[in-house]
Amino acid sequence: MRKIDSIDFFYLSMPQIFDIGDGSQDALLVRVTAGDRLGWGECEASPLTTIASLVCPMSHSACKPVAASVLGERIERPEDIAAIHRKVRQNSMDLLQADHALSGIDVALWDLLGQIYEQPVYQLLGAEKAYPKLPYSSLLFGDTPHDTYLKARHAASLGFGAVKFGWGPFGHQGLQHDIDQIVAARDGLGQDRILCVDAGTVWGTDVEEAARRLDVLKACQVTWLEEPFHTHALRTYHALSLRSGPVKLAGGEGAHNEYMAQQMIDFAGVGFIQVDTGRIGGITSAKRVFDHAQASGVTFINHTFTSHLALSASLQVFAGSEEHRLCEHPGQLSTLAYKLTPEHLEPDANGEIRLWERPGLGIAPDLDVMKQYLVDTTITVSGKVIYRTPVL
Amino acid sequence: MRKIDSIDFFYLSMPQIFDIGDGSQDALLVRVTAGDRLGWGECEASPLTTIASLVCPMSHSACKPVAASVLGERIERPEDIAAIHRKVRQNSMDLLQADHALSGIDVALWDLLGQIYEQPVYQLLGAEKAYPKLPYSSLLFGDTPHDTYLKARHAASLGFGAVKFGWGPFGHQGLQHDIDQIVAARDGLGQDRILCVDAGTVWGTDVEEAARRLDVLKACQVTWLEEPFHTHALRTYHALSLRSGPVKLAGGEGAHNEYMAQQMIDFAGVGFIQVDTGRIGGITSAKRVFDHAQASGVTFINHTFTSHLALSASLQVFAGSEEHRLCEHPGQLSTLAYKLTPEHLEPDANGEIRLWERPGLGIAPDLDVMKQYLVDTTITVSGKVIYRTPVL
Repeated sequence: MRKIDSIDFFYLSMPQIFDIGDGSQDALLVRVTAGDRLGWGECEASPLTTIASLVCPMSHSACKPVAASVLGERIERPEDIAAIHRKVRQNSMDLLQADHALSGIDVALWDLLGQIYEQPVYQLLGAEKAYPKLPYSSLLFGDTPHDTYLKARHAASLGFGAVKFGWGPFGHQGLQHDIDQIVAARDGLGQDRILCVDAGTVWGTDVEEAARRLDVLKACQVTWLEEPFHTHALRTYHALSLRSGPVKLAGGEGAHNEYMAQQMIDFAGVGFIQVDTGRIGGITSAKRVFDHAQASGVTFINHTFTSHLALSASLQVFAGSEEHRLCEHPGQLSTLAYKLTPEHLEPDANGEIRLWERPGLGIAPDLDVMKQYLVDTTITVSGKVIYRTPVL
Repeated sequence: MRKIDSIDFFYLSMPQIFDIGDGSQDALLVRVTAGDRLGWGECEASPLTTIASLVCPMSHSACKPVAASVLGERIERPEDIAAIHRKVRQNSMDLLQADHALSGIDVALWDLLGQIYEQPVYQLLGAEKAYPKLPYSSLLFGDTPHDTYLKARHAASLGFGAVKFGWGPFGHQGLQHDIDQIVAARDGLGQDRILCVDAGTVWGTDVEEAARRLDVLKACQVTWLEEPFHTHALRTYHALSLRSGPVKLAGGEGAHNEYMAQQMIDFAGVGFIQVDTGRIGGITSAKRVFDHAQASGVTFINHTFTSHLALSASLQVFAGSEEHRLCEHPGQLSTLAYKLTPEHLEPDANGEIRLWERPGLGIAPDLDVMKQYLVDTTITVSGKVIYRTPVL
């Protein structure tokens, strides 16, 4: 019987982290081994806090370190991953960060299973073929509307058929500034490309503040308004959805389990559900959300703002669907996140992205790059070292 | 202007942690200072992981360490605590464990504000007086129905008018075992006392498995069935609530923000909402849930399975209500959790509990006991010590 022999978490970081909405400035890589096979995953999470959740001493029967429910478990078939999921969620029910740790482990286990079966993950998930996706370039708003205009023109010149702007000053400098930003984005992009706007939960639970942007969003034919509110504010989302007309609401990246995303589908009135495989519980949970979205007439889209290893993991989930065609493509990766994989999922001449037809995720991180950005970390409890950066 | 000068987290633990559902085996205490005033709080959370969330390096603008949004902030009025809440939730949106860290900090800030105003926290929350509460003793099911019978008799002999059994073997040994356990609890307690049952989310999302216990729950006049399912499984809760008749559903301890608890009230059909002040975002978030519960005709009850410092914090939230009368009273505290406070909130001759009429929480932890159980912890990142157990 093949069992999980090791789980290693690697904390990587750019030399300096800036106070901007760029989630690719650090990374938490997961390496799992079982016999002679090895899998890689990535958590979209605070590296240090997630490492602590992997190795912390047990507090009680429902607050155990995540490693306790993974090490030594059987890994031969997809059902084994589902069983590990159940075990982690039961044994670490009161350990909040556990969902983020599980996410990267789950991705690594699917990659490992792909190595065993010599199949891409999407095939293990039951899909016969991987359909190409239409990537939208995910960009931060410029500091000024003119900066945003230039960014939009640049994205259009790269051939992206869809662009999303978010974060930066948006929502922080008043209504007129937001109107100017959206108009500038549309101007830079031209009329034929898809434009989306990401508000980064800036309006909390304030429906009226969000609603004041609806006119310009409609006039600029914005496809979706993403995260106007806190992920959990279902009623607030729903209230805005009744007034947003052709501008659909989108959200879900904050979901750290499939239930949260399912509730956004069921109760929040979203037209697009965006989950991050590196947060929601990995490929296993993301696939369950995809199934529920498909059954509910809601469009599934990945949320990815990190490396192309994470991007591959995200796309495996809905690669088998021809219908759910858009995908997020992180457009401003840090050097670390870009160099982490030796190849990248870039748009082809049709502006489309295709997954690698190789086992598992189809890509492994570059170990030399990992070594270069590795953050040396040690955690000592009662005189005993319970975590030390593992050897690569 | 009075500002927050320091936040210190102290990891305490029994010498040995057992793999049982007793959440009082370790503790995470929070000390906050502002000028010449000091406040104490407690997180109901994995100590090491929560410490990491306080001090971790920033990942990006929405994934900052919790301390970054608290240190140096103004603390003069209740509104200042609400402002700190907003700041933490915005700056640490992608740091999952942040809600648990915020919870203990929030409690400590209310305690500190009570020291400044020389008022109990419940008065700062707007209540004129603190009504006594009827405590139910919260006990683990015995290993056998006979053990449970003896525990129930003992609780009755101590004068408790209400007892809740949960966890232990319940839900893990088949239907007949669960029936025998519930019958034994009722037999031991006699007919006149309130009996509640806590399933500890054991049935996941399986309505039918839970429904098989409804007959015995009804026959034994069980007041509520707690946590039959995962906290996020709102539809599953709702489906069972339509069949449970006089046995109300209860839940909410897993909520780590007020939205989650509000959704259980709005969508899950619960009759009782139970939030843990040490997890949900402290007294601030718990009070918002109380207000929503009261407006919705749902009964609010604290979830408390740790020290009497945490118990005092929980009770401040709804002390001003005569109507919401039941409260959880942890009945099997570890030596650490029991000795942590020099006094305890024990039932009086009427079987009722009354808060201390003293500033803040009305109690501070015993520093000698803290020293005795303190767990020496060090976290080093890139050669720099970012956390070391603070001096008491």
